[in-house]
Amino acid sequence: MADPEAVAKAFTDHYYATFDSNRANLLGLYQDQSLLSFEGQKFQGAQQIVQKLASLPFQNCQHRISSTDAQPSVSGGVLVFVTGQLITEGESNPLKFSQTFHLAPLNGSFVVTNDLFRLNYA
Amino acid sequence: MADPEAVAKAFTDHYYATFDSNRANLLGLYQDQSLLSFEGQKFQGAQQIVQKLASLPFQNCQHRISSTDAQPSVSGGVLVFVTGQLITEGESNPLKFSQTFHLAPLNGSFVVTNDLFRLNYA
Repeated sequence: MADPEAVAKAFTDHYYATFDSNRANLLGLYQDQSLLSFEGQKFQGAQQIVQKLASLPFQNCQHRISSTDAQPSVSGGVLVFVTGQLITEGESNPLKFSQTFHLAPLNGSFVVTNDLFRLNYA
Repeated sequence: MADPEAVAKAFTDHYYATFDSNRANLLGLYQDQSLLSFEGQKFQGAQQIVQKLASLPFQNCQHRISSTDAQPSVSGGVLVFVTGQLITEGESNPLKFSQTFHLAPLNGSFVVTNDLFRLNYA
């Protein structure tokens, strides 16, 4: 199996660059069974998830990653655990966030089966 | 399968109460294959993991939980995602943390297969 650290690095580089340029392009990373918990709200399926992400009340944003941890999961996937800062337009202070992904292997690549996101308010 | 939210609530209540009273008693929650990433350091196996937790440089601490999210995992387990504050003796300021667990069902209960912990520095 692929090195979890390398998978996590490639995934997070791609995920946050896509998020910060055009959130609608995240659609291909999720599937019908994918789950998102976003600030306690729950969504299932690629369409619902990306609709939520695209509807967030800012146009431009930037993720600055502070840490990325990776572990192999019992199902042959990769758990990815990220902390960092989210800078959104119109906000002078960065928002601290943490996020967990579970990636499952599919056709030589990975899809997001689980996505959990929280802001860490100061 | 058990309700992920109920599993997460029961687990986190038990885990943090045990952590804050006697960390050595966390041993039974992990197994030989369990993985811990603690502030980027990696540990495998119940003994190694609990040895690390017991060696943290404070005697008394208290976890205050801000949020707990739960999702079913593709392997029939539960992903638990926690944010909160850690208060340690001798520190006047609480430390913000986030932590992810994957729980796998075993003999009618759950064991921790994955544990990832990070402080979110201000």
